[in-house]
Amino acid sequence: MSPAQTAIEDDRATQAIEHQTITQQVLDDAHDRVRAHAHWTPVMRSTTFDRRFEAELFFKCENLQRVGAFKFRGAINAVFQLSPEELERGVTTHSSGNHAQALSLAARIAGTQARIVMPKNAPAVKLAAVRGYGAEVILCEPNLAAREDTTAKVMEDTGAVLIHPYDNHRIIAGQATAAKELIEDVPELDMILMPVGGGGLAAGTALAAHYLSPATEVIAVEPSGADDAYRSFQAGHILPSVSPKTLADGLMSSLGERNFPILRERLRSIVTVDDADIITAMRTLWERMKLVVEPSGAVPFAALTASKLDVAGKRIGIILSGGNVDLDRLPWAT
Amino acid sequence: MSPAQTAIEDDRATQAIEHQTITQQVLDDAHDRVRAHAHWTPVMRSTTFDRRFEAELFFKCENLQRVGAFKFRGAINAVFQLSPEELERGVTTHSSGNHAQALSLAARIAGTQARIVMPKNAPAVKLAAVRGYGAEVILCEPNLAAREDTTAKVMEDTGAVLIHPYDNHRIIAGQATAAKELIEDVPELDMILMPVGGGGLAAGTALAAHYLSPATEVIAVEPSGADDAYRSFQAGHILPSVSPKTLADGLMSSLGERNFPILRERLRSIVTVDDADIITAMRTLWERMKLVVEPSGAVPFAALTASKLDVAGKRIGIILSGGNVDLDRLPWAT
Repeated sequence: MSPAQTAIEDDRATQAIEHQTITQQVLDDAHDRVRAHAHWTPVMRSTTFDRRFEAELFFKCENLQRVGAFKFRGAINAVFQLSPEELERGVTTHSSGNHAQALSLAARIAGTQARIVMPKNAPAVKLAAVRGYGAEVILCEPNLAAREDTTAKVMEDTGAVLIHPYDNHRIIAGQATAAKELIEDVPELDMILMPVGGGGLAAGTALAAHYLSPATEVIAVEPSGADDAYRSFQAGHILPSVSPKTLADGLMSSLGERNFPILRERLRSIVTVDDADIITAMRTLWERMKLVVEPSGAVPFAALTASKLDVAGKRIGIILSGGNVDLDRLPWAT
Repeated sequence: MSPAQTAIEDDRATQAIEHQTITQQVLDDAHDRVRAHAHWTPVMRSTTFDRRFEAELFFKCENLQRVGAFKFRGAINAVFQLSPEELERGVTTHSSGNHAQALSLAARIAGTQARIVMPKNAPAVKLAAVRGYGAEVILCEPNLAAREDTTAKVMEDTGAVLIHPYDNHRIIAGQATAAKELIEDVPELDMILMPVGGGGLAAGTALAAHYLSPATEVIAVEPSGADDAYRSFQAGHILPSVSPKTLADGLMSSLGERNFPILRERLRSIVTVDDADIITAMRTLWERMKLVVEPSGAVPFAALTASKLDVAGKRIGIILSGGNVDLDRLPWAT
C-alpha cells in the first residue's frame, strides 16, 4: 500500500470508528443540518402516468435540488460536522460529477476551502462550474490510480479532509434526507425506487425507510451495463465494477464498503435496465413531466417504462436524483 | 362577408352580449370551475437567479399544467359553462397549438365532442395528441381563410359551438386563474410578466392583478418578430400581425378584439425581445431550473436575461406559460 493509499485508509478507519451506525437520531440530526441550506424539494405527480401504470406515482424532484442533484445533501451534512480545526484545513475529493459541485458549494457555505481533483479531460463546463463555486481544481491523469494518488497528495500537502462521494457515513446520512422528506410528504408508500451507483443514495434511502416507514419496500435500479451492485447483492459480497459501460455516467462507481452492508440488510431487491430503457424513460419524463432529468436520474423510472416491476395498484415513490445534462449532447439526438 | 364569416361573427356578437365585463365574481367562478380539473401549479424559485438579477423571482409553472400549458384553464372554463343543449352539439376551434389539445381534453372531461380544424401540414405528433384526447380532427389547407371557412362549415354542419383560443371572455377569465393562483401564493408582487400573443393570458393576468393586487404592475413580453401587440398598444388601436416571424410559435396571432381593450386599460407596458434572447432564456431555464419550457413560455424571462427591464430589488412573478417542445428540434441544436 502506497503512502497515499495509507492516508486514505487512515481516514476511512477514523470514520468507521466515529460512525459505527447511522441511528434514527443521526438521521434526524443530518436533516437539521441539510434543510438549513438545501431545498425541501417538491414531490410531483402525473395524471397521465398514474393512468398508464395503474398506480400512484410520487416523483421526488432532486433534479431541483441545489447544484441540480441530491449530492448536495450529503456534502452539507459532511462539511457541517467538521471541527473548526478541520475547517481550517479544508476539504478534498476526486470527482468529475455532481459530488464535485456539491462539495464545492457546501464548502463555500461553510466558509472552508474545497480542493477538487478532476481528470484533465473533464468537460470545460464542469471545471468552470466547480471553480464558479470557489473551489480549487487540481487536474490529474484520467485514471483511478492517478486520481487517488493526487487526492492523497493534496491531503498530505494541505491537511485537507477527504469527503468521499459515497463511502462515508455522513454522506449516507445526508443522502437519506431525500427519502425522509418524501416519506414525510407522502405517507404509506408501498415502494421507493432510486438509482444505485456507489450506494450513497441507495443506502440512505433504505435506512430512512427502515426507521420512518418500515412497511415500504426499497428497490434499487441499476444500469445493466454497470450492474456491480446487482451482482454483489446476489453474491453476498462486493464485486467491483469492471469496465462499466452506460450513458448513466453517475452510476459507474463500485459499491462502497460502508454502503454494501446497509444495502444487503435493508434493500428488498435490485433491478437492472438497459440504456435504451433509460433513454425512453428520460425522454418520457421530459415530454410529459416537463422536467429535465439526467440519464442516471431517469434510471428508476426506467424500471416502470421497461415493465421490470409490477406496480399496479401501488403507491410508488421515485427519486429523480439529478438533472445535470449537456443540452448539446442529448442521448436521443442522431 | 362570407356565410362562414357571418356565422363566426354571430357567435362573437352573442358572446359580447353575454359577457360585457369580467367582474371579480366572474373570475372567482372561473377559478371554481378550473381548479376542479386543472392543477394549481407550483411556484418555483432559483437562488442563482435571485442573486444574478438582485431580485426575488417567482416562476408560475404553467408548463406543468395539464396538456403542458395554461390553455387548459380557459378551455375548462369555457366548456363547463355550456348549456346541456350546447354540450349536445359539441365544440370546435381551429388551432394547431396548445389550445387544440386543451379544448380536446376539456371536452372529453365534460363529456362532449370536440372537432378541431387543423392545417394538413401540422406535425403528426400534434394530430396524434389531439386525437388521443378523443377529438375529431378536420384537416384543411394551411392558411387562415381555409381554417376559418372550414371551422364555419363544421359549425353549420354539426351545430358545434366555437371556442376561440383567446378572443372570448370565458377563455380570458379562465386564463386569469393562473395569475390569481400566483397572487394568492405570493403576496406583494411588484410586477407580473407573461407573454402576449392573441392576448388571452395577458388580458386575464391584467384583470387578476387589477382585482386582487392592484399595486402589482403587469407587463407583457412579446417577440420582436411578432410585435403587433406592442405596435397596437402604441397606436391605441389593433394593428394586425402581418407575416410574423419568430420561433415562439405560440405568439404569432393578432390581438383579439375582446383582449385589446382590457390590455389597453390594465397593462403597464409591453416589452419586446429577439429570438436570440428567447433561445438564451429558454436554455437558461432548462439548465438552471431543470424545467422544460417552450420558446413562447421563455419569452417573459427573456426580458430579464436580455436586460430589458429593471427588476433590481423587486418581487417579480413570471408566468412560464407552456412546455410543449419537439425534443428532436431544439432551437440551440446546430
